Amino acid sequence: MKLGIVGSNFISDWLIEAAGQVPEAEICAVYSRKQETGDAFADRHSIPNVYTNYDEFLESEIDAVYIATPTYAHCGQAIEAMKHKKHVLCEKILAVNEREAASMFACAEENGVVLLEAMRPDFDPAYNLIREHLPKIGKLRRVTAEYCQYSSRYDKFRQGEVLNAFNPELSNAAIMDIGVYCIHTLVRMLGMPKEIKAFSTKLENGFEGSGIVLMQYDDMMAEAVYSKITDSVNPGIFQGEEGSILIYGIAMPQSMEIVYRDGKREAIPYTPAPNNMVYEVREFVRLAQENCSGHPYRKYSLDTLRVTDEARRQNGIVFHADSVL
Amino acid sequence: MKLGIVGSNFISDWLIEAAGQVPEAEICAVYSRKQETGDAFADRHSIPNVYTNYDEFLESEIDAVYIATPTYAHCGQAIEAMKHKKHVLCEKILAVNEREAASMFACAEENGVVLLEAMRPDFDPAYNLIREHLPKIGKLRRVTAEYCQYSSRYDKFRQGEVLNAFNPELSNAAIMDIGVYCIHTLVRMLGMPKEIKAFSTKLENGFEGSGIVLMQYDDMMAEAVYSKITDSVNPGIFQGEEGSILIYGIAMPQSMEIVYRDGKREAIPYTPAPNNMVYEVREFVRLAQENCSGHPYRKYSLDTLRVTDEARRQNGIVFHADSVL
Repeated sequence: MKLGIVGSNFISDWLIEAAGQVPEAEICAVYSRKQETGDAFADRHSIPNVYTNYDEFLESEIDAVYIATPTYAHCGQAIEAMKHKKHVLCEKILAVNEREAASMFACAEENGVVLLEAMRPDFDPAYNLIREHLPKIGKLRRVTAEYCQYSSRYDKFRQGEVLNAFNPELSNAAIMDIGVYCIHTLVRMLGMPKEIKAFSTKLENGFEGSGIVLMQYDDMMAEAVYSKITDSVNPGIFQGEEGSILIYGIAMPQSMEIVYRDGKREAIPYTPAPNNMVYEVREFVRLAQENCSGHPYRKYSLDTLRVTDEARRQNGIVFHADSVL
Repeated sequence: MKLGIVGSNFISDWLIEAAGQVPEAEICAVYSRKQETGDAFADRHSIPNVYTNYDEFLESEIDAVYIATPTYAHCGQAIEAMKHKKHVLCEKILAVNEREAASMFACAEENGVVLLEAMRPDFDPAYNLIREHLPKIGKLRRVTAEYCQYSSRYDKFRQGEVLNAFNPELSNAAIMDIGVYCIHTLVRMLGMPKEIKAFSTKLENGFEGSGIVLMQYDDMMAEAVYSKITDSVNPGIFQGEEGSILIYGIAMPQSMEIVYRDGKREAIPYTPAPNNMVYEVREFVRLAQENCSGHPYRKYSLDTLRVTDEARRQNGIVFHADSVL
């Protein structure tokens, strides 16, 4: 698969590192609005072709694109790529809202290509291990997916400089950037909740710095706890009647452990990949080879956005794309 | 202070053990509806007087009563005692709802006696230590007070036998029994939230087995996470921008620790009392000696019930006392 890269920040560096471990994937081109940025990125990764015109990029020999631009740009760039019959691996969060994502998946189906959200935990084998061990903790009663990571950009914010990542005008919010890992993992593992209730903590400029989304199910509940202005200490937890499964690292699981009610602890043997984006690249290549535009991951992306849409509605977090008719 | 005991279950045993460490407190009488139960309890603790008539009990030489009966009985028993000019130390949760508690405090004031909720964490010095160390973790952004304790009575429930503690008809619910520790601690440490959002998980008989109450403040949030059908593993946490304070044991703090953003850990030196009810007995004696019916703890009890009233309303947990006009 000849892959073109859209967006040249650190996450693209990681993706290319991961793709290097997947023999079928070959990085052939990079698109950047600025020639200079594109050239520097191409040099760093020995990429043969640099484009500053998106159409020319899409008309080149590539089979697929990886999109890692700001969220508000995903929908337009992905749709244009798919109209050019390119498969699309798109960084999380897939879109600003559910409506955008639905139109993106419709476009994928129309054009017989694969659109996949690059949601690392979806493809990390750690969660299959958890699923295997879940029966050991009895009836599941609560899942807390917590991901709080103090952003280096928050230091700048506190010094008075608002970088893009902390600018709500650019459709940014902690729920979209980091809460999405928790919410996506919950809806994938547990299905859609019956109801959600959410609170946000906003910074002085209106940017959502942290939040909690409660999710109600028939006989249990879940919560997504996220923050860009504090650091997590506690692991994520699957709490059952007979014990709990702890997971250290929601997006990049590092280790897992069962704690039974009697205090007995049992490690779940697991060797994390140094870069777990390798799993999503492999799955993307497989889906593209099978031309599987109707893959099951679509539902998780859509369900996640249904939750983030409602959480944002409850907390008055409105983006430009929400008002598009 | 000559103290009479109302209610003879395990919590009264603990209270008497604690009172044994407070020289001013002397256990003089026990009230029990059944002579046999009262006699057995009096024998166990060498209490000179047993009453099966509440009026006679209240007309005896006692100065104060400790009430540890089911919650729905607190209001009536406390008011009757206060009308007899007895100070009242009443087990948590003080009352079924805020209205009951308000009438109880009004009665205390009218009769110039002290009514105090026996809320252990209110008087445990651990929380003063946390308050002292809070500046170290920077701007506070989230507090999670978690108290999940699998009830031995839940084993019976699962075997088909519904004991009183799991009977919603008796005004029981996890939020009243165990969530109250979390909520009370949060409103005392943080004040009343601007808004709350709550979910409950109910068992097949309608009993609330667990729940989460989210509490929104201006620039932070808090959550009370409680359960009688699972066990906690994670400690409670005060999460600030520069680090977190972990507390192991919400109702009976066992240890506390600071974890800074750079991973550095710092223990907060603390020696827990073997039975931390000793602090509430001491404070009750002091308040009674000073005839301080207008003490500051009243607000925490009332605020807590305002939160539990609203959480119950959101989750359809209705008790008989709620419908009294």
